[in-house]
Amino acid sequence: MNTIIFGTVAFDAIETPYAKTDKIIGGSGTYICFSASYFVRPQTLSAVGYDFPQEFIQKLRDKGVDLDGMQIKKDEKSMFWACRYFDNMNQRETLTTELNVVANYKPILPESYKNTEYVMLGNGSPVLQRSVLEQLHHKPKFVALDTMNFWMDTMMDELKKTIAMVDIIIINDEEARQLSDGERCLSKAARKICAMGPRYVIIKKGEHGALLFSKDKVFSAPALPLEDVVDPTGAGDTFAGAFIGYIAQQDKTDFETMKTAVIVASAMASFTVEKMGTEGLENLTRYQIENRILKFKELSEFKI
Amino acid sequence: MNTIIFGTVAFDAIETPYAKTDKIIGGSGTYICFSASYFVRPQTLSAVGYDFPQEFIQKLRDKGVDLDGMQIKKDEKSMFWACRYFDNMNQRETLTTELNVVANYKPILPESYKNTEYVMLGNGSPVLQRSVLEQLHHKPKFVALDTMNFWMDTMMDELKKTIAMVDIIIINDEEARQLSDGERCLSKAARKICAMGPRYVIIKKGEHGALLFSKDKVFSAPALPLEDVVDPTGAGDTFAGAFIGYIAQQDKTDFETMKTAVIVASAMASFTVEKMGTEGLENLTRYQIENRILKFKELSEFKI
Repeated sequence: MNTIIFGTVAFDAIETPYAKTDKIIGGSGTYICFSASYFVRPQTLSAVGYDFPQEFIQKLRDKGVDLDGMQIKKDEKSMFWACRYFDNMNQRETLTTELNVVANYKPILPESYKNTEYVMLGNGSPVLQRSVLEQLHHKPKFVALDTMNFWMDTMMDELKKTIAMVDIIIINDEEARQLSDGERCLSKAARKICAMGPRYVIIKKGEHGALLFSKDKVFSAPALPLEDVVDPTGAGDTFAGAFIGYIAQQDKTDFETMKTAVIVASAMASFTVEKMGTEGLENLTRYQIENRILKFKELSEFKI
Repeated sequence: MNTIIFGTVAFDAIETPYAKTDKIIGGSGTYICFSASYFVRPQTLSAVGYDFPQEFIQKLRDKGVDLDGMQIKKDEKSMFWACRYFDNMNQRETLTTELNVVANYKPILPESYKNTEYVMLGNGSPVLQRSVLEQLHHKPKFVALDTMNFWMDTMMDELKKTIAMVDIIIINDEEARQLSDGERCLSKAARKICAMGPRYVIIKKGEHGALLFSKDKVFSAPALPLEDVVDPTGAGDTFAGAFIGYIAQQDKTDFETMKTAVIVASAMASFTVEKMGTEGLENLTRYQIENRILKFKELSEFKI
């Protein structure tokens, strides 16, 4: 099953109290594609510059990512983002953001993407996110949206127009509160967000797991208690990629499928944080993934 | 099955942004006994003064609580505690604490309590908690302990001696971090606490549920997303009471039983916070309890 992945492919440089990388492959689109690639064929929508190494592009190709929608701009540099994590790994500061090629990027869907039924709109301008949907030949079966407080602060009206067109929104607890006009109670926040259009809302709570809401149902997914988080970068994008990947692979959009997808997504994200950058996500076996998913079952199953 | 409940029986006065009580029946022992009474016969160990109304004592008797271990001091007043909750219900301030009869209270076990196999040591001085165990004829099958940061700040050595004698400790995330010398990672904190003696540790995370740890296993219990919390007073004690009550009723102390007990405890606590004081806990039917437990199953069950 093909799945459109809209998100940045970029250079990252990451510094934690324990390790430091050079310029490595990063960006939301990269993590989403890597993660989704275990379930479906990701069709990337992104742009890189003349300086993006063939070796990095090959990494995406090796994971089966369809690169027809990747624009390679001969006269621009790739996006570069650098960050440093503080001691407890729960906070980070951005050291550098060089948008470069991303500054004026507009996604253009190749003809081969225009009948795709599953779409993941990674965090980005709600106007561009919407333009992806507008280029499709017909309404897809399922669209998932990631966004962040920056877009709520600067383009709330545009964001709401985009939200009205998607099936699920995947955000964290703070973002859910902001999007619902400061509603502290997450169930109430979710209900307000569902009223904006989406059938489902996922609220990620970091080390406390995630909640999945429909208009009248709720599911609570635990987080695996991890003892050694090496690098949290890309955990949310990995979650999103596995989520849409699993849904597209199953080709079902009912609540039961969403529940399992949240677990699969949480399991995949747990691999990402165990190593620097995309390293933990690049070479997983089916056996490793299934085993990790089983851990979530053990963690939350009880008899009554 | 008899179960010793060591904890205060007192007057409470509670103020929330939405409601205010007169002096009502309260105290940790009251909530624990009420909650445990749905599963076992609670044997209370507590003290009240001459001013404690017969009507309040009758409330305990009506729930089947064994009052042989309740000291009624003719020349002292009952403990009184008043608190006020802030807007978001997550924080409160204590307005009054009049220890009165509790100031010089020492628990004395009636002969009829001395062979009891299950013991809940509610929050209190670790020296008194230990004295309860020392009065038993033999080592009980299972002892659960509640404590708080006050005892860690003021009597850590005594507390550690008591912890070494119990099977499980039930604390919140902040307390777990303090007890483990500031360990931020809850799995590591739990391992350090297990090394102090207990077979199990429960770490309560409020609206994020609870984690149960043994030396080599972990279980994550969700919290029911509640839309209207009326009064959080006694939620932790209700949890403790249902937890020990379920364990004693089952007469089993393996990890599987602990897991179910955590769910039963979470379900019972959810009733308490829905009404003021003990009101939500006083008149539950088996049907209501079973239904609430089923909600936890629905909330956390998924197919893989």
